[in-house]
Formats: sequence, C-alpha cells, structure tokens
Amino acid sequence: MKALILNRAVEDKITITDVVLPELKEDEVKIQVKAAALNHRDEWARQGLYPNLKDGVVMGSDGAGIVIEVGKNLSQEWIGKEVIINPANNWGTNEKAQSREFHILGMPTNGTFAEFVQVKADRVHEKPAFLTWEEAASLPLGGLTAYRALMVQGGLQKGENVLVTGFGGGVAQFATQFAIAFGAEVYVSSSSPDKINTALDLGAKGGFNYTEENWSEKAVEKTGGFDLVVDSAMGDTINHLINVIKPGGKLVYYGATKGNPTDLNARKVFWNQLQLIGSTMGSDKNFKDMLSFVSLHKIKPIIDHVYDLQDAIGAFIKMKSGKQLGKIVLKVF
Amino acid sequence: MKALILNRAVEDKITITDVVLPELKEDEVKIQVKAAALNHRDEWARQGLYPNLKDGVVMGSDGAGIVIEVGKNLSQEWIGKEVIINPANNWGTNEKAQSREFHILGMPTNGTFAEFVQVKADRVHEKPAFLTWEEAASLPLGGLTAYRALMVQGGLQKGENVLVTGFGGGVAQFATQFAIAFGAEVYVSSSSPDKINTALDLGAKGGFNYTEENWSEKAVEKTGGFDLVVDSAMGDTINHLINVIKPGGKLVYYGATKGNPTDLNARKVFWNQLQLIGSTMGSDKNFKDMLSFVSLHKIKPIIDHVYDLQDAIGAFIKMKSGKQLGKIVLKVF
Repeated sequence: MKALILNRAVEDKITITDVVLPELKEDEVKIQVKAAALNHRDEWARQGLYPNLKDGVVMGSDGAGIVIEVGKNLSQEWIGKEVIINPANNWGTNEKAQSREFHILGMPTNGTFAEFVQVKADRVHEKPAFLTWEEAASLPLGGLTAYRALMVQGGLQKGENVLVTGFGGGVAQFATQFAIAFGAEVYVSSSSPDKINTALDLGAKGGFNYTEENWSEKAVEKTGGFDLVVDSAMGDTINHLINVIKPGGKLVYYGATKGNPTDLNARKVFWNQLQLIGSTMGSDKNFKDMLSFVSLHKIKPIIDHVYDLQDAIGAFIKMKSGKQLGKIVLKVF
Repeated sequence: MKALILNRAVEDKITITDVVLPELKEDEVKIQVKAAALNHRDEWARQGLYPNLKDGVVMGSDGAGIVIEVGKNLSQEWIGKEVIINPANNWGTNEKAQSREFHILGMPTNGTFAEFVQVKADRVHEKPAFLTWEEAASLPLGGLTAYRALMVQGGLQKGENVLVTGFGGGVAQFATQFAIAFGAEVYVSSSSPDKINTALDLGAKGGFNYTEENWSEKAVEKTGGFDLVVDSAMGDTINHLINVIKPGGKLVYYGATKGNPTDLNARKVFWNQLQLIGSTMGSDKNFKDMLSFVSLHKIKPIIDHVYDLQDAIGAFIKMKSGKQLGKIVLKVF
C-alpha cells in the first residue's frame, strides 16, 4: 500500500512509498483510510523534535475510514463500519494520568498517513454521521486534547469566562468551539486579526492580539478576568496569563512551545489561589465523552486545506508555517 | 494596656509600650489575651518585608483568651467565654479565593501581642478544652493555612503519599500532624536530622534531608512518589518536587520563601498531568472545619518555647534564627 513514512535520510525527512503492513493481529481491525489529518506532532517528528523517532514508521495519528478486515478474535459485524480512530494507546486505568505504556498512534507504531491502518478494535468508534470524512479525520487527537484540558483538568462550568490562547492551532480551535457550545463566555488570543475574526464568527465574545504590549490589561478591563485559561505556549507568557486569571482560577496547559518560564510569579499564584494544571491527550473515557459532546452539539472541525496523500509534503510545509486556520487534512481514498 | 507594637524608629523595630485601644465597636468583643503565638509574618514585618506596614500597630495574629466585654449589639452571654481567634478577616463569600478586602489580624489592625485584643464577634470560636492556652494560641493561622493547603486545595485522600517540605515551620508541622491523623502516608523533608526524628515520633513514615544532593531520587525509590506535596519554599526547588510527584499528583504551596523558579520544568508538568496549586490562609468554613478536625483527632500543636510578653524580642530573634521546632508562644496573663 502507499504510505508516508519518516525517512530522515532524505531532505524532506518523509517519503511516500510502498509499505507492507504486518499480519493483522487477533484483536486488531484493518481500516481503509478515507482521510487523515496532521498534528504539530507530525511536523515536529519530521524536524527531529519528538522523542523515540524511528525511520520507516508510517506517520499520522488522526484518521477515519472503513473497517475492511478483522482479527480472528473479532466479530465479522465490524466489516463495513465507518469509524474514527482514538490515537491514544494504553492510557491505563488511572483517570488522573496515563500509564508508562501510553503511546500515540503514528510513532512508534504505524499510523494513518496510508491507504490502510491496523489498530486494536477498542481504538475505533463509530464515525459521527453528520461529519464528512475530512471532518471526522480532523477530530481525534485535537478534540481529545481540548476536551480533557477544558472539561476534565479545567473543570469548566457553564457561564465561566474562558480564554483560549493561540487561536489557530487545532487544539485551541476545538477548545474554543467546545467551550462556546458548553455555554461559557469565550475569548481567544492570537497574533492574527483574521484568526480573531474567525473566532468571533464562531461565537467567541472577544479576542486579544497578544503582540500588543498591554493586551493583558485590556483583557482584564473588558472581561473582569478569566476563570480558566487554556494555553500551550508557556514560556514567559505565563506571567501575563497569571495576571488575567481571576483569584481561584485555573491555567490549564497542554504544551510548552515557548519553553520553560524563567521567572514564574510564584507569589501571585499562591496569594491568588491559582491552579496551574498540566494536561495531555486523554483517557478512553475522555475520548468517548468528547465524541458524545461533539455529536450532541453537532460541532464541525474547521478545516484549513485538504491535500491528496501524494501531495503530503505541502501539508507538512503548511503546518510548519503556522499560518493555517484549522486542520490540515490528507485525502486518501 | 501593655502591648507590642511595630516601631521602625528603634533598632529592634518593635517596642513594648502602653497602648490605648479605641472604643469597642458594636459587633466586637474584647478579649483578655492569655497567650499569643508568633508567625513568620510577624518577623517579616519586623524586617520590613511585609506589605502595608504601619508603625504603632499592635502586632500578632494568633491568640487565645477570655471574652471580658462585648459591643452593644452582642449578647452578654459572650462574657467569660474561653475563645481562640480566627485571624483571617473579610475572606468573603467565594470559597475559591479571598476577597480584595481580606486582611490578617495584627497588621494593619491591632493584634494579639497585648493584654487585650478587640475583634469582631464572628472571629472568635470556643477554645477546644483539651488544649492549654499556649496550645490554643498556637493553632489559628498555621492550622488554618495547613488545613486549606492539605484538605481543600490539596484534596487529600486517605492512604495517599504526602510529602511536607521544610518540617520545622509551624504550617509544615500542622500539615504533617493533620495528614497523619487523616490516614495518609506522610513523609517530611528538612535540613535537620533532629527535626526529621521529631516527625518520625509523630508518626511520619520517613524523612529526607534536602541538603543531600540525591534526596529526590531516594524519595521516589523509597515511596514510589507522592500524590501530594505541600511546600512553602518554591524557588528552584520546584523541579526537585516535580520529580517526586506521581503522574496526576499535586503540589500545593502557601509561600515562596526561596523566590520565583527560574526554569520551571513546564514539559514535565503537562506530560505528567501535574497540578501546581497556590493556597493562603483559608475561609471561615475552612477555619471551622479545621477546628472540628483538630478536636476530633485531639491534635496538640508542638510548642518550641514560651516567652513572657515582656521578653518578646527573644521570641522574634528565635523566629528569625529558623532553629525552632514548633510554635513560639508569648504568655500574656
């Protein structure tokens, strides 16, 4: 089958080539991939910035498709089902955190940027019928990460003021859409006025351009402060975020693209009774709850662009640019 | 009356002198102070390291005594009652955080290092009968701070592994005693083997000398990691603490005596789903719950030394030395 593999020997670090999948295991299903979607993780892997990289592995964590074959322990009823894939493997039994065996589909195991993908049957869920293949493929990793950050680690309550930073990234967009659907008062930050306008169109109450020096003062003036901030930048922006959180409020973050803070305002955190909470991906329960939530509120992922699998290098370059607004999708079949 | 006031004009910065209290307000009670106790706050105020200092104010947040007079809106039944004082004023109605009007008895309002103190009637609670005056005076500020950090912000569960850092300070000792009484597996850290031995005598499962370079590796090896760490140092020790917390665990801190962290390990916090939670003092509800808890478990504060009010400078010098193990108490009547 055609598949996109990591290949650090070539200039692009990825190659579309013929790959032979191993024999299907007894508890696995084989899925004909209809669409797959990129995550930052894929581009970071291409740049060598992700741990445990292995050349030759089929990349891609997000995908949706049709079950065409099942392992010998599974019922034939699976065949023909339209499914999306939960890319979080081996979370374990502790809802508070993933086990040491946790890993994400698409590295080091073969992923979704291929004509076929083989995963354990308990990783697949019925594709919500109101989503296109491209939309369904866009949902899993980002939707799961956003749902856990917002609803589980963030414990969002209806009517709370929420700030989602860096609107433009997939997770940030899901967090924005989910929080609006849930009945929160949602604000975003971005360096792009266009992206802020998109958030307003979705129902956000306002947006702040974080390249403006006094954005945090403006934000507090306009909103009275936030009960919950969802972030993935960290670095020294954290002290700005601490300044816009209400006493007793929470900062949940699921990434640290700007690195470690070099002067965390420790006194303000304890005096204001703030909570800084880490989050990443989510449990099987979180995934099911996210799917139910998306189906209940008929939330459609925002798609930036759809590429054919053979044009995937363009998709990676777009991801690297950071200019996308919404998910970057690969159409496979 | 005799009282100890802040007086930055003199070398010691404090003076014991005659003070005339203002007329008792209609919702206040006047208490004859039997014993009072020092907190770090008092010594920091003496050193000019606390905000909103005012010379001439009677210092002291912790005290216990007998009601001898009541404001005109209050029942005479108060007279003669043995009480301890909740030093947290104007917390407000939000359990998550104190209001902007929150302030602590003893600066900028007249405190307990005096023969008499006047406070609102809703600040006094019946003195637990099993405590001596010195023990009762030791409890309020430290007990409240420890209770909220451990039970409310930390959400301690029976059987959890807890590390209390800097055993020796008043709050750390209450946190240790409370967590043991609650049924947690409690460990402490200290630079002093003697203090660690005291913790073991109280029922702690173990102690770690944080001046040893590999104490955090040892701690993980011995305990499997902690569900909850209670700290007041922060600074760059935070990354050691992050290393000893189990995935999904919590670090609650109520002070930052070592200042801001300069290189917070942001990635480990989010990947391990950790929670860094600030805490300070507590609500009226927290105070009542703390008193019930202390009474139920018959917890007796550890007292380092009792000074007469006229020897209070010695008490402040002892506090400054950091060598005390337990509360430093002033006997008044």
